[in-house]
This record gives sequence, structure tokens and C-alpha cells, in this order.
Amino acid sequence: MNKTVRDRRALMHVGPVTIELDVLLAGVKENVGFSSREFVDAMSSSLKGLRKIMGAPHYQSFIIPGGGTSAMESVVSMLKKGDKVLVVSNGVFGDRWLNIFKRYGVSVDSLKAEAGDYVKPEIVEEAVKKNSYTMVTLTHVETSTGVREPVKEVTKRIRDLVQLIVVDGVASVAGEEMRAEEWGIDVVLTASQKALGCPPGAGLLVASPKAVSRISQDMLGGYYLHLSNWLEIMRSLEDGKASYFATLPVHLAFMLAKAFDLIEQEGLENRLKRHEIVGGAIRSGVEAMGLSLVAKEPSTYSNTVTGVKLSKVDPSKVLSSMDEAGIELAPGVHPALAGRYVRIGHMGWITPNDAISTIATLERILHSLGEQVKLGDGVRATQQYLTENIL
Amino acid sequence: MNKTVRDRRALMHVGPVTIELDVLLAGVKENVGFSSREFVDAMSSSLKGLRKIMGAPHYQSFIIPGGGTSAMESVVSMLKKGDKVLVVSNGVFGDRWLNIFKRYGVSVDSLKAEAGDYVKPEIVEEAVKKNSYTMVTLTHVETSTGVREPVKEVTKRIRDLVQLIVVDGVASVAGEEMRAEEWGIDVVLTASQKALGCPPGAGLLVASPKAVSRISQDMLGGYYLHLSNWLEIMRSLEDGKASYFATLPVHLAFMLAKAFDLIEQEGLENRLKRHEIVGGAIRSGVEAMGLSLVAKEPSTYSNTVTGVKLSKVDPSKVLSSMDEAGIELAPGVHPALAGRYVRIGHMGWITPNDAISTIATLERILHSLGEQVKLGDGVRATQQYLTENIL
Amino acid sequence: MNKTVRDRRALMHVGPVTIELDVLLAGVKENVGFSSREFVDAMSSSLKGLRKIMGAPHYQSFIIPGGGTSAMESVVSMLKKGDKVLVVSNGVFGDRWLNIFKRYGVSVDSLKAEAGDYVKPEIVEEAVKKNSYTMVTLTHVETSTGVREPVKEVTKRIRDLVQLIVVDGVASVAGEEMRAEEWGIDVVLTASQKALGCPPGAGLLVASPKAVSRISQDMLGGYYLHLSNWLEIMRSLEDGKASYFATLPVHLAFMLAKAFDLIEQEGLENRLKRHEIVGGAIRSGVEAMGLSLVAKEPSTYSNTVTGVKLSKVDPSKVLSSMDEAGIELAPGVHPALAGRYVRIGHMGWITPNDAISTIATLERILHSLGEQVKLGDGVRATQQYLTENIL
Amino acid sequence: MNKTVRDRRALMHVGPVTIELDVLLAGVKENVGFSSREFVDAMSSSLKGLRKIMGAPHYQSFIIPGGGTSAMESVVSMLKKGDKVLVVSNGVFGDRWLNIFKRYGVSVDSLKAEAGDYVKPEIVEEAVKKNSYTMVTLTHVETSTGVREPVKEVTKRIRDLVQLIVVDGVASVAGEEMRAEEWGIDVVLTASQKALGCPPGAGLLVASPKAVSRISQDMLGGYYLHLSNWLEIMRSLEDGKASYFATLPVHLAFMLAKAFDLIEQEGLENRLKRHEIVGGAIRSGVEAMGLSLVAKEPSTYSNTVTGVKLSKVDPSKVLSSMDEAGIELAPGVHPALAGRYVRIGHMGWITPNDAISTIATLERILHSLGEQVKLGDGVRATQQYLTENIL
Repeated sequence: MNKTVRDRRALMHVGPVTIELDVLLAGVKENVGFSSREFVDAMSSSLKGLRKIMGAPHYQSFIIPGGGTSAMESVVSMLKKGDKVLVVSNGVFGDRWLNIFKRYGVSVDSLKAEAGDYVKPEIVEEAVKKNSYTMVTLTHVETSTGVREPVKEVTKRIRDLVQLIVVDGVASVAGEEMRAEEWGIDVVLTASQKALGCPPGAGLLVASPKAVSRISQDMLGGYYLHLSNWLEIMRSLEDGKASYFATLPVHLAFMLAKAFDLIEQEGLENRLKRHEIVGGAIRSGVEAMGLSLVAKEPSTYSNTVTGVKLSKVDPSKVLSSMDEAGIELAPGVHPALAGRYVRIGHMGWITPNDAISTIATLERILHSLGEQVKLGDGVRATQQYLTENIL
Repeated sequence: MNKTVRDRRALMHVGPVTIELDVLLAGVKENVGFSSREFVDAMSSSLKGLRKIMGAPHYQSFIIPGGGTSAMESVVSMLKKGDKVLVVSNGVFGDRWLNIFKRYGVSVDSLKAEAGDYVKPEIVEEAVKKNSYTMVTLTHVETSTGVREPVKEVTKRIRDLVQLIVVDGVASVAGEEMRAEEWGIDVVLTASQKALGCPPGAGLLVASPKAVSRISQDMLGGYYLHLSNWLEIMRSLEDGKASYFATLPVHLAFMLAKAFDLIEQEGLENRLKRHEIVGGAIRSGVEAMGLSLVAKEPSTYSNTVTGVKLSKVDPSKVLSSMDEAGIELAPGVHPALAGRYVRIGHMGWITPNDAISTIATLERILHSLGEQVKLGDGVRATQQYLTENIL
Repeated sequence: MNKTVRDRRALMHVGPVTIELDVLLAGVKENVGFSSREFVDAMSSSLKGLRKIMGAPHYQSFIIPGGGTSAMESVVSMLKKGDKVLVVSNGVFGDRWLNIFKRYGVSVDSLKAEAGDYVKPEIVEEAVKKNSYTMVTLTHVETSTGVREPVKEVTKRIRDLVQLIVVDGVASVAGEEMRAEEWGIDVVLTASQKALGCPPGAGLLVASPKAVSRISQDMLGGYYLHLSNWLEIMRSLEDGKASYFATLPVHLAFMLAKAFDLIEQEGLENRLKRHEIVGGAIRSGVEAMGLSLVAKEPSTYSNTVTGVKLSKVDPSKVLSSMDEAGIELAPGVHPALAGRYVRIGHMGWITPNDAISTIATLERILHSLGEQVKLGDGVRATQQYLTENIL
Repeated sequence: MNKTVRDRRALMHVGPVTIELDVLLAGVKENVGFSSREFVDAMSSSLKGLRKIMGAPHYQSFIIPGGGTSAMESVVSMLKKGDKVLVVSNGVFGDRWLNIFKRYGVSVDSLKAEAGDYVKPEIVEEAVKKNSYTMVTLTHVETSTGVREPVKEVTKRIRDLVQLIVVDGVASVAGEEMRAEEWGIDVVLTASQKALGCPPGAGLLVASPKAVSRISQDMLGGYYLHLSNWLEIMRSLEDGKASYFATLPVHLAFMLAKAFDLIEQEGLENRLKRHEIVGGAIRSGVEAMGLSLVAKEPSTYSNTVTGVKLSKVDPSKVLSSMDEAGIELAPGVHPALAGRYVRIGHMGWITPNDAISTIATLERILHSLGEQVKLGDGVRATQQYLTENIL
């Protein structure tokens, strides 16, 4: 029934997510070129805004075409032949690092957690101590399961033992706390369409001075995504000077600048709190209706993605019924749980109102499809959670 | 907390209401004049679309500048000096007819219901039998209280006793069933910003051949809103010919055309059903949390506006807290209930998801402000209602 | 050929005119009600902005639904039974005052100029001296011919002889100099879709304290457009308080506020200068190609509308060919010149680039249709004019 | 003066170019995810539309993140270690191929033309006969100079002598004739922000069955841009099935689909003709005012980019004055002509009206800056050209 009303639909997905209209309208520009003043200004302010939400006041910002994967691949331009990398993987997107490094002949070891679990900090420390790694990659929130890695603690343990610590913050930045500089992380990367709440089209990263010092044409990597080609461009644009290597997503830059403005207006603390509450409200409802989360340990529950296990019904039927009811969830993609879960994304511009209507709808639909849920308990628990947490 | 997220806000108001983005974007036209082909086409299709939702296949459509009140005043151009009118009023907007007619020296009698009540069909019949009225005006849904008048039945009783039966459908058309021609109503009018779900700026009406035959310069009325000035314009535009008396709201015409398209896509039946369900879901929740509705009789509950009485808390505090929580309700305006109720509008592009989040939020806020509500009972009842009615 | 490219089309019309995208996008709001804070703020800032461009720092601003004609009719609410009005008319829109006043039984005298001419100040003075008028109405720029009345001089001569001087500035305000207060004009009115460059939907006026003091329910006039119903609303809104009589064009208010912002950014002086140059460039081209202007005296050429006489070709063919070529002009509407001229509007967001392409296209089209124009002379003269005036 | 009027500005640049509002608005979607039905439909229709404008009914379409450079780099995934490539370069973007291939260790020979010149077909043929190349790359229109290579003729001569013929159509596709299949070209690539008239963010290419058959993980290339990762995704999306490798620019897909719709509406033939006329009109004006084109031979003048040599004035001053006057041109970037030319882009949604106003403005500005131009001659020649060619 709700399908006919497009606007009130909620895209509780993992990116793109529901986007603020003001963000979208900021990109409606009919005649802005890559050397236009407005574009340069939008890039400059976005590069500065990125640094803030990354907690990286002295790092170099990059906004490059593509998304999370292009940002990941760009990190290759900090590695030279012979460098060794440890990939800490909690799922599909952790494993992606392996696929990327393989293409460039980088020597890689990996630590892998089971679906829903995470690699413990002590395990990482142990591995790092046994070997000499140039780079360790961590996934802050594993999008395929919703599990959050304690990157602060891992970094603390391994900071002095490796050259570069790289965090994939695709499913966390702007929704989870990130203090790259204070915690000692060298590179944090994300994508425009996640908790920043913009359309897809850009990969964003910050790099510590040490990481930047390694970027050169002599390093590995291709051409388009090689950070040595973008470094001076970013510096120029941040300084307000038009500069060109390849055409940036001009219109998206305006949307990013607007998103950073809105984040500033909301206050980053408030924004993280909002994500925490929406995530908490959703998990309360899910658990109260008798379902299990994919993430095993509460300390790893993320504020941005919740994997929900189903015991009887076909996830694809749940997704299509939810869609019909005006709420679009994401399919489960972890191979080990194939066909046994769905994901609820809660990133960007979402509110407690979305939490309650998502739980209410999910409860009704699961009930009607035959999943063993206690009708009414989910929505009551979410309402209880909200009562305790926002009023 | 939700205030920072503009897009997910719900405007549960009495008009303007939440508007579909596609409707708004349809009006983003940089260079369309009043004689441009596209505008003529948009008007033509809107005039036709209006006839459909009014259930008036052989009536004349009018779309004039202004809104509900300008449409009401335009009806004066069907009255000549000496004509007598009976105004059937269930509240503020029923009384508005009196104010309008007074300005033109029309002789008026009125039947008035108490706040929350309605004038019964037999009372109207009785009055009409005692006197010779040229026109009787009815208010389909009284916006100030949410009470629905049984216009079909009233019309049946008085059809042969008066010249013109005029229905103010401002708060009903496109949200409540209306079959003007079949029921024998001469004029039904509405405004763009109500259940049609467009921005304000236009009054819309349909008039029976008998009503149209009375329109002439010799009748009462002013200039801008005199239907004799608009009649040929409307006929020309519907026939696809540019025509000018005074400038119409060109951009709004595109939005209206898009709204009629979307209504066609949804299906009018489905749209009415959706309003009924959302209205029902809201009332269930309101009553379950222990509050009273302004409307006294269930048969008069409207699908579009619900007045909710408060016993202890200050309505303005409820409104501002709800607003803060991302849901904007409307203040109560009936003088007899001043400061004792709020209104929930549920017109246009609203869904069951809005119903549940409105009730959940209202429940929490009333509870926190000290109104005696049973926390959890409202949202449970709404969820129950939705379970029974949409799945 | 240009018809396929919508965006580069120029609407050289008399209103709506080409509208800035930022103005249009300002109105794309999905959930703003008539009591929403943002709307109140937009109204407040628009009411203040209006006062500025009217040169009326101590006047009362009104923004009411409708347009130029509704604003004209609203002035009736400053007249009481028995008041006498002098209408000074230079064409179709001057005559409109007669039609309006007639509906309310106002006693009216009129002074009429021939098509293309204007009523001289001394003639007005003479008439005013012979009779006792409560109100004199003037048309600043007569849209049907493009003739500008010297309202400053007329006002100087009659200021002390009449109660109220009312100027229809529909086709002038924001494109021609207007200093209502300094010149001693009581009421100046305009419409949103003219040189303000917004969509149609609002009539705007400023009224002197003396004019305001006459507004009351005891005066003539209808209901919807009666300023006594709007006065307190306007005062409240300007003070930042939500207030309701009938629903205002909420979305348009945001567009007006944005237009006033852009005018402020441009600078009113610069804006008027731009209109003057574009008007001058167009007239240079028109005359150089051998055509005559409708306006007879150069001192009355307006900066906003130019009537162009044709000697051989059918105006409707010129209009459709121009439209085909991406430039939409307005038809001639003065009955005395029916079928013998077209109008070029140059209001709002137009530039010298529009002037040159309009002249170039007009020249080619007239030539091809058989009008005796010297191909190349028009565009050369416009280029010459621009060389002398903007570089 | 025109700077204050944003909308009427013309972005006569090399990409992004002036974009149709309807294209931009098509991307204003608040809740569309990468697996949403609407997105899949938009991709499907864009992939089909691409094939049409490429003249490649039996080729495989790809739409990948990035732009022209990412599309170029993706071609590496058709090469295996040891393959030899001949790069035919007429300037900066021809040379870019060398930089790309170098990163992957591909063995490359090159033929280079001087600035403004092009490598003749017979020279390419000769080189190809002397060596065994797997791939030859050609640049259809060299953006840095505006020179068009006769790719049809080159292909004819070398078709049977090489495995793969790859054409960079970044500055030509949708503005110049392209019949990939008929002419025997294996790969043609372009970018969204050029003559397609969309925002930047996507590289688009078509590949012949032979080219597709070479795509595999065993070939060279990185990860994100490797076509083996995208091939099945594209096939699925074209077939209407959601599919994921990395997130595509979802919102841009809607804009591309709309652009392809508008191209269909205009007719590809008409679109190419329009580009030809606008290009011709601009060149006429430029030459008539006494300036030289960068492109040396008339047969190589492109319909999309015109390089204009300046003899006395500083190009950056010309650019800033033009910008001030509402027309943004592109700087010259060919190192051999550094500081001695500017580029006029005329791609996408441009019209003869833009040609005349560009020439008129350029003429006035060059004159005022001291360049030896004959004031009035440029605009007269353009007007003459348009008279002969469109009326």
C-alpha cells in the first residue's frame, strides 16, 4: 500500500541510504565546470569537513571518484614492491582487501573471523608481533554483518609494530566515533553514500603525514586511483585553486559540502548519538520479537548496520514485502549465512520515527509470512527503548 | 532530536501537508509562460483530472488562484441579489460562508452544530422545507474539528427543494469519497494543498450545468474571483488553447497535473482506502492511550483530520514537542474548544508508517508532559489495527 | 531546432518570465505548513524585502494570494461608499481598474491615452483640480504597450489634491526605479511573476500609514482580498509569529524570500541598470532593423516591456517561429493594435546575452517571413549598444 | 554584469557542460538504493541507450564509476602481459594512454602529432604494418586542441592488421557521428559529462564481442576498474536484475537514462546536426573577427571543441572577463601552446543562441582587452552563418 507514496518510503539500506532533499538539491547546478569558482569552493570546504569528522586535524584529505572500493584501492599507492600487508577480515568487505592486493602482487596475510564474529585485538597483536608488516587493514564496521571492530584498541596494541594502519570506515564514518589522529590510525576511508548521506560517486579518505610521505609514482598501483596523481590536486583545491588531473564528480562535491554543513549544524556528537539511539531502538525491537542478531557480541553491535537472522521465512520474501510496505531493507550477503538473514541499514538521515515504523512493519510482515515472532512485542520494546533514551 | 533531519519529518497538518517530491519537482520550470504549450497542457489535464476525483464527468471544472476561501467566494457569482442561502455549519469553516455572504449582502440563514457535532440531515431537511433557499452550503469535513457531514444523505433529502447544493470539500476531496454527479451536488470545491497533496495556491471546483448556467456578470461577486471571468478561460485551456484573464499559478498547474497523474496511478479507490486506514490507525492509537476525539459520533469520523482532546497538558507544548520530534501537528482552532485540543491531519501522501510513528511519538510526549496516557497502549492498538487491516 | 533544448530557452515574456533555478529550488519543500517556523521566517523576510525595493521604509507590506489583479482589487478595501476615483489608463491594464471598481459600485472617472501613448502629467493635474477624488490610480508601466508613465512627476503635481495615489507597478517594480515614500505615492502593488522573477501566485503591495488607516471592515470590497482580513496577519508574520486568515502560498513565500535575497546580492541599483541596458540593447536592435516601437515617446520607453510593431507579417507566425527557435515572446493584446505587434518582455533574470540572441533570432525570423528588415543591422546595433554601455 | 544571473550563464566548457534541468532533476531521488527496481530500470535503459548512440547494436555496454580516464584504464583489462599497443596521439589526452599503459608495464609505441595537427591515416597504417600490435588507440576528438581524427578512415586501413581498435570518444560521442560496428571499431568510450550532457561520475564504453572475449581476470589491470568484475553486473542490470560488485553512481544513472531519453526525443541525427551548426557558427565568428583556430585543417574541425589562438592578450584575462559576462570558456592545456589559446566547448545542450551570444561577448571582450579584432565582424559572420544554415 505504501509503495504508491514514494516520499515517505524509508531506505533502511546499507548505501545509498535515505538522503536529505537539501543535500540533493545542492547538486542541481546547470552550469558549473571543473574550474568554476563554486566548485573549487565546494571541494575546499568538503576536504576540510572530511578532516573534522575523521578526527584528523593534521591529515591530508582526499576526495576521489568512485566509492569505498576505489578508496581502498587507492591505498595501494602507499605500498612498494615487497611490502607485506596483514588483512584483518570480519567478512565480505574485509576479504575485498585480499582481492585488491592480489591484483598488484602485494604479499598478504590474513586473519579472518567467522560470520557475525570479529578478530579480537589480541589476535591481531599476536600476528603483528610474529611478522613484519608494512600495513595492517581493519574494517571498522563490516557491512555484510554489522559487526564493529574495536579499531581503537587494536591500534593501541599494534601502533608501534607496523608502518601503516588503515581503517575501512565505509560503514562507520559519520555514524560511529572516529578519532584517527588521537587513536593513531594512518588512513581512514569512506564513501559518499553511507553515513555521510550523499549519493554514491566519491571515495573519501584522510592520510597521516607518514602515509602521505609514502605516496609517489614509484609505489604500486594503477593510474586513475593512484594518489600521487591526486595529491597536488587536493592541496590546490583545498587552497581554493582550480586544478585538474581527471574530472571529479563536480555536482556531488556540492552535495558533500552541504552534507558536511548539515553535520556541522547537527553537531557530530549529536549525530553519533542519533545513530546510536536509532540502532539501539531497532535492535531492541528485533530482539524483543524473538529474532537473533547476526553480530554475536553486544560490544560489537554497530550503530549503522544490523544483521537480522531469520529462522523460517525466505529473506527475499521479507525484503519484497517490506519494500511493498514502503521500507527497503538490504539483503544478506555473507556467503556463510546465505539465505538466512536480512540487513537493516540505519545510516545518515534516519530518526527514531524510522526505527519504530521499521520495527512495526517488520513485525507485521514476519508474522504474516509465518516467522515465529511475538506480534506487538517488537514495537513495544522499541517504544520502551525510545521512552528511556530520548525523553 | 529529529528536528535536524528535515526530510523524515512528517507534516501531519491540515494543509499544506507532506508533499511528494515528484509533485514539487514537476513545478521546477524555468521558462514557462502563461501561453506556453506545456502550461496549457498541464491545465487541460488538471481540469480533466479534477472532474474524475469529484465524480463529476459532465460538470465544468475550474482551477482559480487562491485556495479554499477563494473557491468559496467564487460561488457568490452564482447568486443574484435577493437570493437566499442556508449555511449548514459544523464549525469555523462552516461559519466562514456567513462571513463571505455578508460582504455581498446575501440573505443568509444558518444551522449550527456544537463543536465536535454535526447538523443532522433531518434538521437540514426541515429547515429547507420551511423556507425557499436558492443555495444550501455544506462542509464535507469541517477542518476545525475533523467532523464529516453525511453530504450524500443531506443531498438526497433536499435535492428537489433547493436550486443549488454547494459542498465545501476542502478537507475531504481526494481523501473521502465524492460522487458529485451521482449524489446530485451542484458544486464541490477544494484547495490544492489539502488531500490533493500540492502546495497552496489554487482553489478548485466543479459546477453542474445548472450551476454554470447561473454564472454571469449580472450576478453578485467581485472581479478577480468572479467565475464569469474564468469560465471561458477554463473551457479554452481544457481544449488546449492558451487564454488569459489574469495570470494563473503556472508552476502549480504542473504540480496539480502531476498529483492527478499520481492519483490515477494509485487508483482513487486505493487512495481513499489508504486515507481510511491511516485515519483508522491513528484513531485507534489515540483512543487506546485514553484520549477522546473531538468528533462525537463514529459515523462522522473523517479520514483526513482527527481532533484530539487533551485533559491536562497545554496543546501548544504538545505541538512544540512533537515538532521537535519531527512530527508537526496542527493547533486546535475551534473557539469553543480553545486550548483544549490538537489536530492530526492525515491527508495526501501519508502512510501507515506515518500513523505508527505519529502515535508512538505522541504517546511518549504526552506521557512526559504529564497527560494521563497509558504508555505503550496507543502504539499497540495502532499496530493491532494495522495488522488487521493491511495484512 | 532549439526547441529540443529546454534550458537554454529564453522566456522573453511579460510574466512569468525566465526564473532563476535557485529561486525555484527554494520552494521545493516537502513538509512546511502554514504555521511552520521556516514559513514564518520566509514571510517575514519577504515583507521586509518588499519594502526595500518599493522605497517605502515606513509603509505596511502585504503579500496576498493571487497576483497583480488580486492586488489591484484589494485596494478597494481602502474605499468607502461614495468615494470617487480617477483612473489614469494607458491601455488594457489601466482599463482593468475600471472593471474592478465597477463591480463594487465605486464612482469612477477616467483619463485614457491612445495605444502607445500616455496620459500627460498636466492632464492628470487638470482633471484632479476639477474634481474631488479620494483615489487616483496610475499604471507605472502599461504591460500591453510597454509605455511608462512618469509617476513621480504626476504624483508631485497631484499629491496635495487627492487622498490616495495608487500605482500599479506590476510591470515595473524591481525593474524600474520606485521610491514610493520619497515620491509620495500611497500604494504600490506588483505581482510575483514579473520583474521579481518568481512564479505567479502572489500579489504584493505596500501601503502608506494614511492608506492603512483607511482599511477596515466598513470599507468596500469582498472577503478573501479584503485587506482588513490580512492586515494583522501581515503584522504578525513580519514579527515572526504564525498567523492565519486563509492559507498563503507557502512555497512561493520561500521563492520570494530567495528572490529578495538575490536582489540584495545583486544590488537594486545594479539590477535596475541591468534592466535598462537589456531594454536599451533590445530597442537599439529593433529600431536598427527598421521596425517601430509601440511606445511613441522615448521618455516613456520602459526597461521591462517593449512592444514591436510589424508591418507585413502575422504576429502569431513570428511568435511560433521564435518559440521554435528557443525564444518565447508575448502576443500583443491592446485591442487598438490587434494583430499588428508583438511584445518582448525583459524582466527579472535576463542579461545582455539574451538581448543579443533575441535580436539575432528575431532578425532572421522576420527576414525569412518576409518582413522588410535589414538583415544584420539589428544585431550590429545591439552589439554596438552593448559595446558602448557595458564595456 | 551577467554574473549575478546564474541561470542564463552558458558553460561553453569541455565538460561538465551546460546541463538540462530535466536531466539534473531526474537524479533528485531521496530513497533509491543499488538494488531498487527504479535504479535497475535506469541502468538497463541507459545501457541500451548507450549502444544506440555508439552505433553498436551487438556490442556489450558498460557504465562504470569515474569518467573518461577510468574508462580508458578499464581497457587494460583486455590486454595480457606481452601485448603491444600503438598509441596514436594528437595531444594531451592521446598522451594519457601512454601514462596509463606505463603503470601496467604494457609495451607501447606512439605516433604523435604536433599541437593542432593530427596523425594521418596513412602514417598509422604504415606503423601498423611494420609491427604487430594487439591494440591501437585513437582519440576521436582531442579535447586539448579540438582536432578530430578521421577514425573511420584509420580503422578501414588497419582493421585487418590489429586485434583491437580502441577509440577515445570522450569529446565526441553524442556530438559527432559514431558507427562503431559498421566502421569496425572494437571499443568506444566516453564520459557522462561531455556531449551526453550529464554531470561527471561515469565512464561509458561499448565493446565488440571480440573485445569482450578477451576480458578476464588473467588479463592486466587493477581491481575496481577491471572489466571482468563489471561484465556480469552489466549483463544482469541490462536484463533487469539487481546485481552488485561495487556501488554504481545510482543517481547519475537516472540522469543518464533521462539524457538518453532526451537524445531519443531530439533524434540523434538532429543532435549531431545541431552540434555541427553551433560549431560552424562559432568558427565563422571566430575567424571573421580575425583570430586563428588551433586546429589546422578544416577537415579536422570538431563539432564539440574549438581552440582559439590569441595573439596579444593573456588568455586568463579573457577567461575571467568572459566569466564575468556570463560565459565560461575553458583554458588551453596543450603544453606546446601554453598561454596562447582558449577553448570554446560546444557540447550537449547548446543552441545557436549560445553561439551568437558567445561570439558577441568574445568580440567585445577581446576588443576591450586590446586584441586586434574587427568589432562587429564576428557577430555578423555568425549571424550570416545561421541565416544560411538554419533558416
